[in-house]
Amino acid sequence: MNIVLLSEPDFVENEPCRARLSGRRRKHIVSVCKVSIGSKLRVGMINGKTGNGEVLSISDDCIDLRVELNEQPPIPLPLTLIISLPRPKSFIKCIEAATVHGVKKIFFINSRRVEKDYWGNKMLSEDAVMEHILLGLEQARDTVLPHIELRKKFKPFIEDELPEIIKGTKAFIAHPYSGNMCPYHVDGQITLAIGPEGGFIPYEIDLFNNIGFTDVSFGERILRVEHAVSALIGRLF
Amino acid sequence: MNIVLLSEPDFVENEPCRARLSGRRRKHIVSVCKVSIGSKLRVGMINGKTGNGEVLSISDDCIDLRVELNEQPPIPLPLTLIISLPRPKSFIKCIEAATVHGVKKIFFINSRRVEKDYWGNKMLSEDAVMEHILLGLEQARDTVLPHIELRKKFKPFIEDELPEIIKGTKAFIAHPYSGNMCPYHVDGQITLAIGPEGGFIPYEIDLFNNIGFTDVSFGERILRVEHAVSALIGRLF
Repeated sequence: MNIVLLSEPDFVENEPCRARLSGRRRKHIVSVCKVSIGSKLRVGMINGKTGNGEVLSISDDCIDLRVELNEQPPIPLPLTLIISLPRPKSFIKCIEAATVHGVKKIFFINSRRVEKDYWGNKMLSEDAVMEHILLGLEQARDTVLPHIELRKKFKPFIEDELPEIIKGTKAFIAHPYSGNMCPYHVDGQITLAIGPEGGFIPYEIDLFNNIGFTDVSFGERILRVEHAVSALIGRLF
Repeated sequence: MNIVLLSEPDFVENEPCRARLSGRRRKHIVSVCKVSIGSKLRVGMINGKTGNGEVLSISDDCIDLRVELNEQPPIPLPLTLIISLPRPKSFIKCIEAATVHGVKKIFFINSRRVEKDYWGNKMLSEDAVMEHILLGLEQARDTVLPHIELRKKFKPFIEDELPEIIKGTKAFIAHPYSGNMCPYHVDGQITLAIGPEGGFIPYEIDLFNNIGFTDVSFGERILRVEHAVSALIGRLF
């Protein structure tokens, strides 16, 4: 936790600069950050500014901070990710990795090689997703929540929704069997689609290509999706 | 598991092409790969060639494969990693990530911001390290074990051992406060040092610079070490 994230309900009534934290955040601040009265911490308002928090009081139940917010959060990465839904453990790792790197929009989509029962897994619940978004933001000292969207129907998403999403962006699809090497340091807004470990099937690649995606390869190794996310971001930006 | 890794003791006496597997590998082949007699699997000899395995028999205890090895494993990444020992969970994730990308030499070293008790953690045992190396190789369809070395003394490592390691390589140190942006697509052999989340201290950076390292930045976000490994590899290679 490199930043303590706050939201409106954390603030004490009639004291607009005083936040009171309990639970996971109090525990982390006390036992990992090992603060005392007067210690300073980096804090940020969810979807808002960052700044400093000074420890005013510590009890067994809660910790009070005097909060001053005057800095902008880090600049978002100009990237929209389209990811074929991986197994649930990878799903939450992808969310954390993408959030750490500053991605603000991710669509998890169906495709032929997605196991159907992944869609019912509890890791896809709003609470689980939010937990891993917050871990990612706290790691990267960011405050801006990414939008995570799930799309269970492949073809309607690609044909009806995706053309609008990629407008004004360079659109790539990471495909292990592509003849084009993935480019480096691409300027501007990017849309990047990442398939399942076995890759999208040729029919799916065709649909992407038809609406303007360029397929690019990252080499012969089969990466886990969460490793592919970081590696492709490292290369493209 | 995208490849079944084999070693000499797996082969049946007097039948040089017949391997017999039990335990984790048998379980995975039966319950995840859902094979039947005659199914083909990708197999590889640890530190050797890859090829095909045909399922000859399946029992509750073991599975027999007819093994044919005639392909080279993927080309190693020309990279030596020097990583400031992270917390144990990150340590094993770094090993997996680096192994998946094809890194064959990693030194985990001490530095000022390393928590001393990390060095005694059971995740650093040979068995735990080997478990995560194998997971990485199985993911990437590789067979060649990386060498993982631990160095508990910072200065002797940097001054006495590292000059020899970086000979003939381009040596970079990932440092969040560097004024040089990390380069893209660098040719040749690379040595890359990655500090703890808070970065190496200035004295440590000086020691690296003194022997020929260039410090480079990857932006203002504080990445977990395992994300930094993938992102930097994606950019440098």
